[in-house]
Amino acid sequence: MIIDCHGHYTTAPKALEDWRNRQIAGIKDPAAMPKASELRISDDELRESIEMNQLRLMRERGSDLTIFSPRASFMAHHIGDFQVSSTWAAICNELCHRVSRLFPDHFVPCAMLPQSPGVDPATCIPELERCVNEYGNVAINLNPDPSGGHWTSPPLTDRHWYPIYEQMVEYDIPAMVHVSTSCNACFHTTGAHYINADTTAVMQLIQGDLFRDFPTLRFVVPHGGGAAPYHWGRYRGLAQELKKPLLEEHLLNNVFFDTCVYHQPGIDLLTKVIPVDNILFASEMIGAVRGIDPRTGHYFDDTKRYIEAASIDPGQRYKIYEGNARRVYPRLDAALKEKGK
Amino acid sequence: MIIDCHGHYTTAPKALEDWRNRQIAGIKDPAAMPKASELRISDDELRESIEMNQLRLMRERGSDLTIFSPRASFMAHHIGDFQVSSTWAAICNELCHRVSRLFPDHFVPCAMLPQSPGVDPATCIPELERCVNEYGNVAINLNPDPSGGHWTSPPLTDRHWYPIYEQMVEYDIPAMVHVSTSCNACFHTTGAHYINADTTAVMQLIQGDLFRDFPTLRFVVPHGGGAAPYHWGRYRGLAQELKKPLLEEHLLNNVFFDTCVYHQPGIDLLTKVIPVDNILFASEMIGAVRGIDPRTGHYFDDTKRYIEAASIDPGQRYKIYEGNARRVYPRLDAALKEKGK
Repeated sequence: MIIDCHGHYTTAPKALEDWRNRQIAGIKDPAAMPKASELRISDDELRESIEMNQLRLMRERGSDLTIFSPRASFMAHHIGDFQVSSTWAAICNELCHRVSRLFPDHFVPCAMLPQSPGVDPATCIPELERCVNEYGNVAINLNPDPSGGHWTSPPLTDRHWYPIYEQMVEYDIPAMVHVSTSCNACFHTTGAHYINADTTAVMQLIQGDLFRDFPTLRFVVPHGGGAAPYHWGRYRGLAQELKKPLLEEHLLNNVFFDTCVYHQPGIDLLTKVIPVDNILFASEMIGAVRGIDPRTGHYFDDTKRYIEAASIDPGQRYKIYEGNARRVYPRLDAALKEKGK
Repeated sequence: MIIDCHGHYTTAPKALEDWRNRQIAGIKDPAAMPKASELRISDDELRESIEMNQLRLMRERGSDLTIFSPRASFMAHHIGDFQVSSTWAAICNELCHRVSRLFPDHFVPCAMLPQSPGVDPATCIPELERCVNEYGNVAINLNPDPSGGHWTSPPLTDRHWYPIYEQMVEYDIPAMVHVSTSCNACFHTTGAHYINADTTAVMQLIQGDLFRDFPTLRFVVPHGGGAAPYHWGRYRGLAQELKKPLLEEHLLNNVFFDTCVYHQPGIDLLTKVIPVDNILFASEMIGAVRGIDPRTGHYFDDTKRYIEAASIDPGQRYKIYEGNARRVYPRLDAALKEKGK
């Protein structure tokens, strides 16, 4: 089985975006604020948006199951207050839940949180509980910068985030560290802010000792870990200067990297530098880079091709495709086993 | 000849730091503000600080010449106002100039600028002129984020920066894009802020069309280009989505990456992905990562070892070590030729 641990619902029916625009207008003009119930999207519309897009490409490329979360750039936690984020997260999570019910063999949901800049992350717990208990979510996306490119929250190692971590440990679910859209003109959303956030998260986790407090806490750092694997010597060296244990011990029991690296040399480096037990297959399809690479004639984000061509053996490939995901996402593993998979 | 295009004066005599601390105290208490003339460092002190450190390691490792600039993390453009930065930059640039006079065969100066958040970069021109005309500087370091991790300046493609670019073009000098210390707790200075800035700069240059306005402008992106080479497929794909020309044409006539990547697989990726004409030898020694890699028994930042072991031919190695630097830094080339080198 090939499990893609990183897919977003980037193809939701346009009614969702229209509702969101009305919600944003409603921040300034409360009379214009729509009710959640005013958003109506039928099962047929959901089905079509998936079958024509993600599911079609999954079939073409040969992946089986996607851990599926709301569109990352649309989370936009910087917009409005907690109430705005809360209503929006509930709507987006419900849609991913419905997709997972319509295509139970192909999509398993991962929740966005109703984060809001300057608001205690503990306020996210009720939505998190609902998504796990009622919707069968197997993971969350945690935004280390709900300000959208201004980085006004404390580092991920700060106690600020502990309420989320306590709940993650209790439920035994991992978090993908994933920012949303950048509202800082310096940072292109998918070309700079996403990658910088990945790099930043890795370095925060190296600087701190978070996993001493939470030995079973698990993070997936997307986009191949940002710059970290390419600069792995730098990070090993900095850990050494900071008198931390070797990264294998300090980081790699708890931190995993996905394979959203869109060319062969990048995947070759990732699989050479990072232990295979810490690599999870992912494509972030349909996402930031939708085109065809003129050098190969294949989609940039068809990452399975790079994994197939990497110098790893079938046992290692199994871990990247399936084995590691079952270990990092135990609720996914349990759900699969319940179905005899 | 082996030219290291990226060295900072990280080992200056302690009197420099003491003076800076007094200057910082003087921001709040003008009576305590020291005069520049109160800083006294003898030639012998300069000589010792270099001979025992950078020059010793250059000899041990076999590099000949370092393009030498003030300590990057000490630039700290976010501290004080333009006057504070101006006095500080003048002092730091003078020291690098003196080092280059004491060791004319081994150090060529590169200037820091007296940037200050929210201040027009045109205010940096007099210091830039002085450094080129009087001190023989062959390049500048340009900080895309003088706020120190808050990213309050416009992107590098904005007209805000054009006064600097016009002067660079007139003098035919390149800029290394190099941030300074981070005063944002989210970003570790050398582990996150530096690398993020490199990645951010590359993406800004992809988004914009700066080199249409300045066809001869040249940037060196340090630390191996941040995340860019590892994610080169992503950047090629994003450029395509943005309807830009191929990166070879859009970026690589003007943008160069140094080799400050502290392990073999990273250098292997860099030399495989980025055309050899765009790679400049560098170590940033003595810099962020000063330890010995327990896996190799050699210094992490002894990047010459990685270049020696990379799968490139002698002609390519010559370009990385010397040929490209002569092309990217024409004033260096002219100075060398004047000496018959």
